[in-house]
Amino acid sequence: MPVWFWLVPIASIVALGSAYGFFRQMMKESEGTDTMAKIAAHVRAGAIAYLKQQYKVVGTVLVSLTLVFCVLAYVLHMQNPWVPFAFLTGGLFSGLAGFIGMRTATYASARTANAARHSLNRGLRVAFRSGAVMGLTVVGLGLLDIAIWFLVLTRFYGTDDAHQVVVITTTMLTFGMGAAVQSLFARVGGGIFTKAADVGADLVGKIEAGIPEDDPRNPATIADNVGDNVGDVAGMGADLYESYVGVILASAALGAAAYMASGAEIQIKAVIAPMVIGALGTLLSVIGVFFVSTKEGSTAKQLLASLGRGVNGAAVMIGVASLGVLAAMGMPNLWGLWLALITGLLTGITIGRAAEYFTSQGYSPTKRIATASKTGPATVIIGGIGEGMMSVAIPVLAVVSGIGLAYFFGSGYSFSTDTMSLGLYGIGMAAVGMLSTLGITLATDAYGPIADNAGGNAEMSGLPPEVRERTDALDSLGNTTAATGKGFAIGSAALTGIALLASYIEEVKIAISRVLEGGADYTFPNGSTLLASATDTLQSLSLMDMMTRYEVVLVNPKVIIGMFCGAMLAFVFSGITMKAVGRAAGLMVDEVRRQFREIPGIMSGESEPDYARCVSISTKAAQHEMMLPSILAIAAPVVIGLIFGVPGVLGLLAGAGATGFSLSMFMANAGGAWDNAKKYIEEGHHGGKGSEAHKAAVIGDTVGDPFKDTSGPGLNILVKLMSMEAIVIAGVAVAVHLV
Amino acid sequence: MPVWFWLVPIASIVALGSAYGFFRQMMKESEGTDTMAKIAAHVRAGAIAYLKQQYKVVGTVLVSLTLVFCVLAYVLHMQNPWVPFAFLTGGLFSGLAGFIGMRTATYASARTANAARHSLNRGLRVAFRSGAVMGLTVVGLGLLDIAIWFLVLTRFYGTDDAHQVVVITTTMLTFGMGAAVQSLFARVGGGIFTKAADVGADLVGKIEAGIPEDDPRNPATIADNVGDNVGDVAGMGADLYESYVGVILASAALGAAAYMASGAEIQIKAVIAPMVIGALGTLLSVIGVFFVSTKEGSTAKQLLASLGRGVNGAAVMIGVASLGVLAAMGMPNLWGLWLALITGLLTGITIGRAAEYFTSQGYSPTKRIATASKTGPATVIIGGIGEGMMSVAIPVLAVVSGIGLAYFFGSGYSFSTDTMSLGLYGIGMAAVGMLSTLGITLATDAYGPIADNAGGNAEMSGLPPEVRERTDALDSLGNTTAATGKGFAIGSAALTGIALLASYIEEVKIAISRVLEGGADYTFPNGSTLLASATDTLQSLSLMDMMTRYEVVLVNPKVIIGMFCGAMLAFVFSGITMKAVGRAAGLMVDEVRRQFREIPGIMSGESEPDYARCVSISTKAAQHEMMLPSILAIAAPVVIGLIFGVPGVLGLLAGAGATGFSLSMFMANAGGAWDNAKKYIEEGHHGGKGSEAHKAAVIGDTVGDPFKDTSGPGLNILVKLMSMEAIVIAGVAVAVHLV
Repeated sequence: MPVWFWLVPIASIVALGSAYGFFRQMMKESEGTDTMAKIAAHVRAGAIAYLKQQYKVVGTVLVSLTLVFCVLAYVLHMQNPWVPFAFLTGGLFSGLAGFIGMRTATYASARTANAARHSLNRGLRVAFRSGAVMGLTVVGLGLLDIAIWFLVLTRFYGTDDAHQVVVITTTMLTFGMGAAVQSLFARVGGGIFTKAADVGADLVGKIEAGIPEDDPRNPATIADNVGDNVGDVAGMGADLYESYVGVILASAALGAAAYMASGAEIQIKAVIAPMVIGALGTLLSVIGVFFVSTKEGSTAKQLLASLGRGVNGAAVMIGVASLGVLAAMGMPNLWGLWLALITGLLTGITIGRAAEYFTSQGYSPTKRIATASKTGPATVIIGGIGEGMMSVAIPVLAVVSGIGLAYFFGSGYSFSTDTMSLGLYGIGMAAVGMLSTLGITLATDAYGPIADNAGGNAEMSGLPPEVRERTDALDSLGNTTAATGKGFAIGSAALTGIALLASYIEEVKIAISRVLEGGADYTFPNGSTLLASATDTLQSLSLMDMMTRYEVVLVNPKVIIGMFCGAMLAFVFSGITMKAVGRAAGLMVDEVRRQFREIPGIMSGESEPDYARCVSISTKAAQHEMMLPSILAIAAPVVIGLIFGVPGVLGLLAGAGATGFSLSMFMANAGGAWDNAKKYIEEGHHGGKGSEAHKAAVIGDTVGDPFKDTSGPGLNILVKLMSMEAIVIAGVAVAVHLV
Repeated sequence: MPVWFWLVPIASIVALGSAYGFFRQMMKESEGTDTMAKIAAHVRAGAIAYLKQQYKVVGTVLVSLTLVFCVLAYVLHMQNPWVPFAFLTGGLFSGLAGFIGMRTATYASARTANAARHSLNRGLRVAFRSGAVMGLTVVGLGLLDIAIWFLVLTRFYGTDDAHQVVVITTTMLTFGMGAAVQSLFARVGGGIFTKAADVGADLVGKIEAGIPEDDPRNPATIADNVGDNVGDVAGMGADLYESYVGVILASAALGAAAYMASGAEIQIKAVIAPMVIGALGTLLSVIGVFFVSTKEGSTAKQLLASLGRGVNGAAVMIGVASLGVLAAMGMPNLWGLWLALITGLLTGITIGRAAEYFTSQGYSPTKRIATASKTGPATVIIGGIGEGMMSVAIPVLAVVSGIGLAYFFGSGYSFSTDTMSLGLYGIGMAAVGMLSTLGITLATDAYGPIADNAGGNAEMSGLPPEVRERTDALDSLGNTTAATGKGFAIGSAALTGIALLASYIEEVKIAISRVLEGGADYTFPNGSTLLASATDTLQSLSLMDMMTRYEVVLVNPKVIIGMFCGAMLAFVFSGITMKAVGRAAGLMVDEVRRQFREIPGIMSGESEPDYARCVSISTKAAQHEMMLPSILAIAAPVVIGLIFGVPGVLGLLAGAGATGFSLSMFMANAGGAWDNAKKYIEEGHHGGKGSEAHKAAVIGDTVGDPFKDTSGPGLNILVKLMSMEAIVIAGVAVAVHLV
C-alpha cells in the first residue's frame, strides 16, 4: 500500500475528532430561557420520532435488498460475494451521517438563538460550528468507510493482479448504492415531510389567517421546524454523503480500469489518488473552518467575507496542494490530471455562481419575477417557470465544457476515443476536485437551516425582534454560500453519472468473466462470441469495443427506448413527489383549519394548539408517499435490464442523466428565485409586505417549496441511485434479458 | 413509375377540390347582423395584418437561408444542388396552408355564430366543414408538393440506380426543413400573439374588472380572438403540414435505404408506399367528412358520436384498405409492414386517449386539480404540475412500445440490428399510419377555435346567451376529438424523429461520397479511412457500421455533450417562450389598465375601447419575441456540428428528442388539465363561478395557456426542425469540425 493512502484514515480521524470537538463546544452554550429549551425539545422530539419511522422503512428496504443480493451472489452466482455487506455498510454509514447532523442541528437551534441575543457574531459562531459538525461528520464517515473497505479488500485480493484491483474498486461502488438508497428515502421522505408542513403552515397561517411565519399560534409551526431538520439537514447530509463516496469510488474504479496495463504500482496510485485528494481536501476543510472567525461587532458583509474566506481558502489551498501531493505520489500524466481537477473546481464554481445569479434578489432574474408579481400570481408563476427553464443553460454549458476539458486533460491532451478510459478518469478527477472540500462547503450549507430554526425558536419564544433579524441575516448569508455548495453537488453528480456509465461497462465485463469461468461461451448482441476459455480476450476489450459489441449506438431501438424511458422517469418521479407534497399539504391545511375552528382561544393565545398532531400528519404522509417514487427508482433499472439488457440500461441511464440534470436545475433555480422574489418584496419593493404583489409572491414561493426542496434534489439521487444499482445488478442484465 | 403512385396527385386534387367546395358552401351562409359582420371584419383585418408581418419575417429568414444553401451547394459543393429550391417550396406551401386555413376560419366565425342562432346542428355543420377546409388543404398541398417534386426528381435522376433513389428521397426531405422553419415561426409567433392577448385579457378583464370573457368592454378582446386564428388555426396548420410531409418523406427515405439491395422495382415500391398510404388516407378522410352529418335536433352526445364516426370511420377504413393496397402493390414483407402501420394507429389512439384522460374533467386527474383549488392558487399550480408530469408516463410507454413493435414487424419479426434499416422503415410506416387520416383529424382539431371565435363574436354582438352556450358546446366537443388528434401529431413526431436519425446517417453517406468523388480520402473518427476510389465500400456500409465508425456510442464525450445540450435546449426554448408570453401579457395588461383609466365610459359601454392598439401590441411582441427562440433552434445543430461533428449532432438530436417529448407532453397535458379544471368548477362544483376556488382555478388556467399553446407545441417543432436541418447541413458537419 503506497504510504500516501494513510492520509485517508488520518483525515477521517481528524475530521471526526474536530466534529466532536465542535459539538462539545456548541453543547457548552446555554439554550436560553425555559421556553426556548422547551420549544427546542419539542422540535427535537418530533425530529427523532420522524427519523425513527423513516429508519424503520429504510431498514426494511435495506435488509430486503441485502437478502436479494445474497441470493444473487450465493445462489445464482450473478454477483460478487462482498456486495451484500458493502451495500449494507453504505446504507448504515449514510444514515449515521444524517442522524448525527440532525441531532446536532436540533441541539444547536436554541443555542444559536440564545447566542444571537448577544450578537450576530456569536450567533454565527454557534450556527456555523454546528454546521461544521455535519460537514466534517459526512466526509469523516465517508473516508472511514472507504479506508476500511479498501484495506479489507486489498488484504483479501492483493494489489498485484490488475484485474483483481478492478474487482476491488467496482465492489466498493456497491456501498455507494447502499448510501444512495438511504439518501433517496432521506431526501424524498424528508422533503415531503418538510414541504407538507411548510406549505400547509403558510397556506393557512400566512395567507388565510394573516399571522407571521413561525407564529406559535399556528399548529403546523413545530412541524415546519421539525421539517427543516429532517429534510434540509438529515436529508441533505445523507444526500451529500452519497455524492461524496460515490465520486471518490467511481473515480477509483475508473483509475483501476484506465491504468490496468501500466503495472501494479501505477494502477494502485491511480486508484488511491481520488481518495488521497478527498483526504487532503478534508484536512484543508478543517483548517478552513478555523478561518471563519469574526471580530465582535462585525457587519453582515464582514460575516459573509469571513465565510467566503473559509470556503474559498480551502478551494485555493486544494488547488495548490493537490499539485504537490499528486507530484509527490509520482502520478502519471501529472499536469493533465491536475488540470482536470482544476477544471472540476472551476466548473463547480461556475454552476454555483450561475445559481446565485438566477436565484439571488441582487440580480435581474429574481427582480423580474418580483416585478411580475404586480400583475398577480399567474404572471409570477409564468415568470418563475420561464426564468427557471432558462437558468438551465449556463450550468449545462459549464458541465459540458467541464466534461470536454477534463476528458482532454485526462487522456493526455486528446479527444481521441483510443484513450477513452484515461479521458474518463480525467472526468472522475474533475468530479473529485469539485467535491474535495465538501467538509467546509457542506458546513456553510448546513448552518442555514440551523439559523432558520433558531429564528423559529426566537419567534415562538417571544424573543425581541432583533434576535429574529439576526438569525434571518445569518440564514440569508447562508443562501449565498449554499448556492456555491449546491453547484458543486449538482455538477459533481453529473460528472459522476458519466463516470458511472464506464464503471457499469467494467462491471459488465466482470459479469461476463463469471459466465466464462462457469465454462459457458458468451455471445454479444452484435453476434460476436467469446469462448469459455477467452478470458484474456475479454480483458483486452476496450470500452469502445464493448459498446460496439453491445451495439450501444443511438439508432439501436433498445437504446432509444431506454433513453425515452429515462427522460420520462425524471418527469414522473418529479410529478409523484410534487403531488405527494400537494396532497400532504392539503391534509395539513385541513388539520390546521380544524384546530382553528375547534380549539377556541388559539388565535388569542389563550390555548396551545395541538402541535404533535401536525407532526404526526407530516410523518405519516412522508412515510406513505415515499414508497412509490422509491419503488419506481429501484425497479426501473431491473425492468429495463431484464427486457432490453445492457444497451437498454445504458440508454436509460443516459436519458435520465441528461433530462434529470436540466430538470433538477430548473426546479431548484425556479424555487430559489421565487423564494427570494418574495424576500425582495418583503424588503419594501413593489408595495412591501401585505401588498397584492406580496400575496402573489407568497404563492410563487409556496409553489417553489416542493420544486427546490423535494422534487429537484430528489432527481439527482434518482439518477445516481439508478446508475449505482445498474452496476450492482449488471450480472442480471448480462445473464437474463428478453430482447 | 408504378401505377399506384398516381393515387398521390389524384388524392391531392380530390382533397383540394373538396376543400374548395366546403369553402364555397360556408361562404354562402350569412354572416348575421351588421354588428356580427363588423366584428368578424375587425378580427379578420387584425389576423391578416399580423400574418403579413409574420410572413415578412419568415420570408426574410427563408430567403436568407436559401442564399446560404446556394453558397453551400454551388460554391462550397457541400450540398445537393436541389436543396435551395426544395427548401423554399416547403416553406411557401406550408405558409399557404396556414394562410388558407386562417382565412377560412376568419370567414367562418360569424357564420358559425349565425348558424348557431338557429340550432346547434347548423352551427356544427358550418364550423366542422370550415375545419375540414383546413384539414384537406394541409394534406392536399402536402401531397401536391410531394408529387411534383418526386416527378421532377425521378425524371431527372431516373429510378434505376438504387443510390440515386436514396439521393432523391433525402433531397426531398429538404422541403421538410422549409416547412419546419415556416411552422416554427407560425407556432411560436402565433403562440406568443394569442397567449399574450389571452392572458392579458383574462388578467385585467376576468380577474381585476370582473367582466366575462369576450366582453366587448375589454380592449384586448379582439386581439384575443385574432390570436385564436393566428395561433390555433394558422400556427397549427403550418405545424401539421410539416409533420405530415415530414413523416411521409422520412419514411420514403428509409424505404429507399432499406431496400437498396433488393432491386429497382422493390425499392421504388418501398419509396412510394408511404405516399400512397397518405393518399389513401386522404381519400378516406374526404369520405369521413361526409359521415359527419347530423339530423336536426341532435343532442351534444349525438354530435360527438357523429364526429367520432367520421374520425374513427376513417381510421378503421385505412386499417382495412391499407392491407389491400399494400398487397395490390406487391409490397415485400406485406404483413409485417401492415402490422407496423396498425401499431402506429394504435399508438396514436393510446396517446390521444391518455391525453383525454389526463385533461378531461370527466376523469380524476382534472378533478383532483379542481379539488386542490379549494386550498388556493398554490395548490392548484402544484397539483397541475404534478399531474402533468405524471401524465408523461403513458404516452412515453405507448411510444416506446410502438417503436419496439414497429421495428420488430418491419424487420421481419426480429430485434436484430442486422436488419436495422428494415426495422426503421417499419417505424416510419407506423408514423405514416398514425398521420394517414390527418385530413379528418385536423378538421376536428381546427373547428374548435372556429367555434371559440364564433362564441366571441356572439358575446360581442350581444346575441342571446343560448347562442354562446351552443358555440361553447361545440368548442368543448372539439376538445375531446382534438385530444386524439394531438396524440397522433405528437406520437408521429416522436417516431419521425427516430426515423430522421437514420436519414441523417444516409445524408452523411451522401456527403462522404461527394468528398470521395472530389478525389479526396475520408477518415472516420474511429481512424478507419476510405480511399477516394472506395465509393462502393461506402455504399455497402450498414447503419451500424456507420455508427461504429463515427463512434456514436453512449460513453463518447462528444455524444454525451450533444445529449446534455439537446436536453438543455428543450428547457431553454420553453423558458424563452414562457417568458415571452409573460412579458407580452404584461404589456397587454398595462395597456388595458391604461385604457380603463384614460378612456372614460368604457365600463358603462358608452365609448368603445381602442381594440387596434391591443392587436398591434400583440403583433409587435410576437414579432420581436419569436426571433431569439428561432435563432437558437436554427443555430444549435450548426454550432454542435461545427464543434463536435456527426456524433455531437446525433447526441443533440437524441437528447432533444427524448427530453422534448416528455417536456412537451407535460406542458400540453398540464395546460389542458388546468383549463378543464376551471371549466369543471364553472359547471358548479366547489362553489362554482366567482368562488375563491374558481379564482384559484382561473390562475391555473392562465398559467396553463402558454404551457399548452406556446411552449408545449413549440417543442415538437424545435425537435423536428433541428433534425431536418441536421440532414440538410450534414455535409458541413462531415467536412468541417473542430474536435
